[in-house]
Amino acid sequence: MPRLTALAATLPDTVPFVGPETQERARGRAFRARVGANESGFGPSPRVVAAMAEAAAEAWRYCDPDNFELKASLARHLGVTAENVVVGEGIDGLLGLTVRLFAEPGAAVVTSLGAYPTFNFHVAGFGARLITVPYRGDGEDLDALLIAARREKAAIVYVSNPDNPMGSWHGAGEIERFADALPEDTLLVLDEAYGETAPDGTLPPMLPLRPNVLRYRTFSKAYGLAGLRCGYVVGEASLVRAFDKVRNHFGVNRMAQVAGLAALADHDYLDKVVAQVDAARRRIAVIAAANGLRPLPSATNFVTIDCGADGAFALKVLQQLVARDVFVRKPMAPGLDRCIRVSAAPEAELAIFAAELPAALAAARTA
Amino acid sequence: MPRLTALAATLPDTVPFVGPETQERARGRAFRARVGANESGFGPSPRVVAAMAEAAAEAWRYCDPDNFELKASLARHLGVTAENVVVGEGIDGLLGLTVRLFAEPGAAVVTSLGAYPTFNFHVAGFGARLITVPYRGDGEDLDALLIAARREKAAIVYVSNPDNPMGSWHGAGEIERFADALPEDTLLVLDEAYGETAPDGTLPPMLPLRPNVLRYRTFSKAYGLAGLRCGYVVGEASLVRAFDKVRNHFGVNRMAQVAGLAALADHDYLDKVVAQVDAARRRIAVIAAANGLRPLPSATNFVTIDCGADGAFALKVLQQLVARDVFVRKPMAPGLDRCIRVSAAPEAELAIFAAELPAALAAARTA
Repeated sequence: MPRLTALAATLPDTVPFVGPETQERARGRAFRARVGANESGFGPSPRVVAAMAEAAAEAWRYCDPDNFELKASLARHLGVTAENVVVGEGIDGLLGLTVRLFAEPGAAVVTSLGAYPTFNFHVAGFGARLITVPYRGDGEDLDALLIAARREKAAIVYVSNPDNPMGSWHGAGEIERFADALPEDTLLVLDEAYGETAPDGTLPPMLPLRPNVLRYRTFSKAYGLAGLRCGYVVGEASLVRAFDKVRNHFGVNRMAQVAGLAALADHDYLDKVVAQVDAARRRIAVIAAANGLRPLPSATNFVTIDCGADGAFALKVLQQLVARDVFVRKPMAPGLDRCIRVSAAPEAELAIFAAELPAALAAARTA
Repeated sequence: MPRLTALAATLPDTVPFVGPETQERARGRAFRARVGANESGFGPSPRVVAAMAEAAAEAWRYCDPDNFELKASLARHLGVTAENVVVGEGIDGLLGLTVRLFAEPGAAVVTSLGAYPTFNFHVAGFGARLITVPYRGDGEDLDALLIAARREKAAIVYVSNPDNPMGSWHGAGEIERFADALPEDTLLVLDEAYGETAPDGTLPPMLPLRPNVLRYRTFSKAYGLAGLRCGYVVGEASLVRAFDKVRNHFGVNRMAQVAGLAALADHDYLDKVVAQVDAARRRIAVIAAANGLRPLPSATNFVTIDCGADGAFALKVLQQLVARDVFVRKPMAPGLDRCIRVSAAPEAELAIFAAELPAALAAARTA
């Protein structure tokens, strides 16, 4: 038989996330509320949907491997040039390319314990060495990350701002000071997937670009296009250009290009979604509080809810919600695992969550 | 500044293929005939287009990371089980994962000189060592590939059947004997992207699965869905399972899943396209012959045309066609480079090719 590489042979064939469809097949029943994956149930803009429908007949054409129009539009949107942008198959794909480009096998990569599992999947997948530091007060601990990055001479340090899975955030100034304090050859991977729903003052200004920072954004969250796989990285041209060495040049699908362009053109819709997300966050917080639980402040399109006990209890709450056809997820790291995580969603789904939570809690308490 | 890995630093940031859109931007003018990228201008099935349009509003949902329904449908279609199939972001993406999984840095990987450049891009990208053998009689030379694979103790040998860029093919028995004769730990990457348009007897039976062969298929060619990025690999479960170690689990977009399912369900449309491709191949051959050129036999959705002189002349022919708004490509390897390559397409585009070829040839002869 052909042999796996020595590195590949060490990797598990488990997956970073189990999809809700997989759970539905196992349960033999569909979820009634899909509020676990931080998708945007508010959906994409109707103009985006129309643009996709119109483009469907052109699906026989390969995409433009340069993503020229989408990059140009993003550059205008962000106040940078197209040379500062690379588009890829979602942030997930771009994180993989980043680790591949910047972390030698064995190199140290620093992240928070309980932060994005798919990033860790890529770190393992390219044989780099994952160093984790605990969260502090339900936020990423920038001081501890900095100490670890310096101590380990890290090739990469990963920060999500706003943070997933806790919903917390740092102000732009804190992030900038953190970037400035890093060893100069450490790359800051700044994941801003949830940036659109954060308060003003969370995202650092785009300019001046820093030579040691790449910023990751996506159409999957506020733009409501998770299914299309379209994310982008913004940074100095010399860093961004490196992605051309290894990316799948025809990898961004044509529908994503069309939808991304249309989404950027519909500012009003984005504003509307951001307001809907904010209202949904407040609604989730009210539901949580009404059940004696503590909603954590959130700058994202989800609310993390402290279930008030340990990880085992929160897991039971999750299981009881799932048993009642409510798809939610939860943090798994020690200290964070007392929480469940509920995505901002239209009222119909939040009403189901509200209706099922009391019984789920009661069952979790007696189970 | 953050540093690239030693391997990444050696890689060029050139691209395997320049897209027609890039050429159009450089020219400042659109192509009138897009017959260079072996896309299917016959388009996807109208049922597939309708399925995509209907699915557009659901683009806010992540795809099913298991590709469960699509794999099940493919397995039925191919007479294997779902455990024998992995779906990815086009054959391009799957080839990258294959090299990553099975070729150590420095390991020998054997291919034909002038075969698929994107495969070579991945071999370089993962630091493996590319060994090439020349074509023989415009076909891949299985004897020479076998000798090279044995001599080099190759981790992987790549064969495209039918072949791109020459359109030639081997019979199923030849491929099977080749697979059986390989060193037992050499993986045969059998690229069957053009399999649907090949004569009966070209594709080996799917069963029994061979422990040293992975077969690559796509919705990009006969199914007319190049823009959606959806390909798949078929092989023994133990080999196929390895992709889960490294693939981008949410990487196949939801539109591709929906379209792929609908495409597999519309056998009549596929049959119709295969007949249209065959007619277009004959039409291209007639056009070539009418201009004193020699069309090569083709089992693919394109016809490679021998321009009757050297590579420099064929390049001039290509340039003159491009100048006349006809997008074509050409093989670049010595011996193959006397040819240009024209995709099967609807008559409107082939008529433009027919109309422009005489002047392009005349200009190439006097340039």
